[in-house]
Amino acid sequence: MKRLLVACMLCATVAHAEDKRARALLDGAMASSSAYDYVRELVDTVGARKAGSVGAAHAVEWGVQVMQRIGLRNVRREPVKVPKWVRTAESVELLSPIARRLHAVALGGSVATPPDGVTAEIVEVTSLEAVRQLGDRAKGKIIFFNKPMSRTVDFMGYEGVVGIRGHGATEAAKVGAVGALYRSAGTARGQVPHTGMMRYDEAFPKIAIAALSLEDADLLHRLLEANKSVRVRLKIAAEWQGEVDSANVVGEIAGREPELVLIGCHLDSWDIGTGAIDDGAGCGIVLDTARLILAQHEKPRRTIRVVLFMNEEHGLSGAKAYAVTHKSELALHTAALEADAGAGRPYGVYVAGEGPTLERVKEMIAPLSSLGVTDVKKTDEAGADLIPIQGAGPVVMSLMQDMTQYFDWHHTEGDTLDKIDPETLKKAVAAFAVLTHALSESPTRLPASPPLP
Amino acid sequence: MKRLLVACMLCATVAHAEDKRARALLDGAMASSSAYDYVRELVDTVGARKAGSVGAAHAVEWGVQVMQRIGLRNVRREPVKVPKWVRTAESVELLSPIARRLHAVALGGSVATPPDGVTAEIVEVTSLEAVRQLGDRAKGKIIFFNKPMSRTVDFMGYEGVVGIRGHGATEAAKVGAVGALYRSAGTARGQVPHTGMMRYDEAFPKIAIAALSLEDADLLHRLLEANKSVRVRLKIAAEWQGEVDSANVVGEIAGREPELVLIGCHLDSWDIGTGAIDDGAGCGIVLDTARLILAQHEKPRRTIRVVLFMNEEHGLSGAKAYAVTHKSELALHTAALEADAGAGRPYGVYVAGEGPTLERVKEMIAPLSSLGVTDVKKTDEAGADLIPIQGAGPVVMSLMQDMTQYFDWHHTEGDTLDKIDPETLKKAVAAFAVLTHALSESPTRLPASPPLP
Repeated sequence: MKRLLVACMLCATVAHAEDKRARALLDGAMASSSAYDYVRELVDTVGARKAGSVGAAHAVEWGVQVMQRIGLRNVRREPVKVPKWVRTAESVELLSPIARRLHAVALGGSVATPPDGVTAEIVEVTSLEAVRQLGDRAKGKIIFFNKPMSRTVDFMGYEGVVGIRGHGATEAAKVGAVGALYRSAGTARGQVPHTGMMRYDEAFPKIAIAALSLEDADLLHRLLEANKSVRVRLKIAAEWQGEVDSANVVGEIAGREPELVLIGCHLDSWDIGTGAIDDGAGCGIVLDTARLILAQHEKPRRTIRVVLFMNEEHGLSGAKAYAVTHKSELALHTAALEADAGAGRPYGVYVAGEGPTLERVKEMIAPLSSLGVTDVKKTDEAGADLIPIQGAGPVVMSLMQDMTQYFDWHHTEGDTLDKIDPETLKKAVAAFAVLTHALSESPTRLPASPPLP
Repeated sequence: MKRLLVACMLCATVAHAEDKRARALLDGAMASSSAYDYVRELVDTVGARKAGSVGAAHAVEWGVQVMQRIGLRNVRREPVKVPKWVRTAESVELLSPIARRLHAVALGGSVATPPDGVTAEIVEVTSLEAVRQLGDRAKGKIIFFNKPMSRTVDFMGYEGVVGIRGHGATEAAKVGAVGALYRSAGTARGQVPHTGMMRYDEAFPKIAIAALSLEDADLLHRLLEANKSVRVRLKIAAEWQGEVDSANVVGEIAGREPELVLIGCHLDSWDIGTGAIDDGAGCGIVLDTARLILAQHEKPRRTIRVVLFMNEEHGLSGAKAYAVTHKSELALHTAALEADAGAGRPYGVYVAGEGPTLERVKEMIAPLSSLGVTDVKKTDEAGADLIPIQGAGPVVMSLMQDMTQYFDWHHTEGDTLDKIDPETLKKAVAAFAVLTHALSESPTRLPASPPLP
């Protein structure tokens, strides 16, 4: 009885201290614009930073400097080999029934066309299944994938169309097409095409593929709808230039115990735009979380390791390298959190775990109810960069953030600082910091997430 | 007494017949997508149609064909000489503190730079007054006009910044600047610069001027704010190629009496985009108004003359030519209406007139109350193409339309068909048709609008 009472008193004291620390993190986040300032620095002094580019190399140096400035320990560049794909030029010209230059970008990884391009009639489809059913009607044609993306608060709209981006070129090649066009995976108007990664199946011919603005995709659709034969010339100059040396940037807040919590973002961006929301914002959130936790002047129970991953966008090179480099200590990773969902309003947490884990996370985010961060949902994947370590130790999770506007700009020239609302970003920092703190202090460990299905 | 009674009975019968005709026009407009179809045809078969271009010549032929198809009489091309300005290329490169290619378009009428461009530090100002006060600090610099435009339901936001577009280059040249940059007169993000007309004062050196996207204007502002010296290279290849032959397209619905009502739009567009909202939508409204009135199978009291003006955008050539060609009959023009405010929701009428005229117009639009078209406001100018005939006979007016989104896209690559909501466009047609009908049937004439102050 007496021991129970002591335990409960201790428990209350601990809970009270935890509440105070969570409150301090929350207030600290809301009182500072540091996260926004980190993003501003990154996009205004580095800008685009596709893996393998000069920009990416500058971003690595920037990451090291910021971590040192914040006061992280063991700040280092961990070597990563990245494949280097370089875009030189691209164009899509509508030749008939009218002549017009369309607004297009090559998808990341596309092969080049011959210097004069490929010229052909287009055939419109809205799915990978539909192109398979074209049979001979696809021979010698350019396949035009025209599935509109829905605007949703989460990734669902994107997931409805991104499979076509990844596999459309190969599926078109299988039925004899000579090129492919893709209605951008995006939700904004303004002649803004979206790039993004595509892959080839090595067993089939590789044909070039470019993404079109929503306006120009609509135009092609209207012309076809009017029973016109539509001819275009697709030109892409781009090439793979082998593997080059790059790095993840890693720094730590040393803990009292050997276990650790990983918090990460990705440092690279696409080659167009400046990667402000994708994923400058995530790096701002993660770096500012580290700054806020250090400002508490108390060693966390577990080491908090901050990782700025290289090349999330074009092959997860940094994430894979991390899993190899840290193989022997992955079992010590009790939790891993990635911030790669932009700068929108946070409203919950995705967790790759079961009911009791979700309940525990709900308790952890209780201090965030005033921010409206209350939802906890099960997920399979909580961040692309966490996939390689998923199943090897940590429970993986990420913030649920409002993505209603995210796909207006991601992977476009329009991914710039003005797309971030500084006040909303503070809320995301607060949520990320409180959750990170709770995970690093939790007396018991949450069950490891299963590997991806 | 008896006579008065007869008069009142007649009056009621006439009012009832008028109500029926207004109702038929309104219902006809709401039941048909013809206006949208006209715009679709224009933008999908012609597209950009800057005065003097091949596109403009095609647009003239299109206009003649549509008028003939509708069944207008006396369809003709009335000769107009238009000055021809041709853009070949433009670029604005940020050279330091970072290297980046900015998103820019030359303003319409800008001189070319030397082939290597002009390279200089930029100096930021937010008004014409501010550049005048720069004195020697402007010498050898590129002046960066960075006044943000407000989003308003009407033209007010635009009017707050368009003066800088028109006169900025000359004001900058007066104090020794070598080039000028202009924050686009626009309200949408997405790296979408807006072109538009500028003028030179012949007494001063002519320097090149380009408009920047809002994002890039913000970037330059941030770099200057961080106390950095910002250098850019501005290159423009463009030239005036003299005057070429073009035409206004004119057609009529013959009336019972010699007076006439003019309804117009402008057929030309800028050289970027497809001129869907500026002013394809206006031409759709005007042409469909003519179609609906013809469908009533009754000769209107006054002739309704439909004019598709050439070169509103770059000097009002067609409007000026119209005033000259029709000088002798301008006194017979009892009213003139222009549709050049996009495809937004109609909510009233601007009238260049005094109280009693506004009251009369209010009566005329009474049948539109169900559409929410109820407001009548005094204005000085009711349409740029009406300026040359203003003061010579007609009362000039235009619809009040919701322009909240109009300046997102006008004068940009994003001015495409998808920016028009077909259902909303029907309402604009209904309002325009009912007003045109009332003006053509009105037993008494409204006082002429005064010339522009």
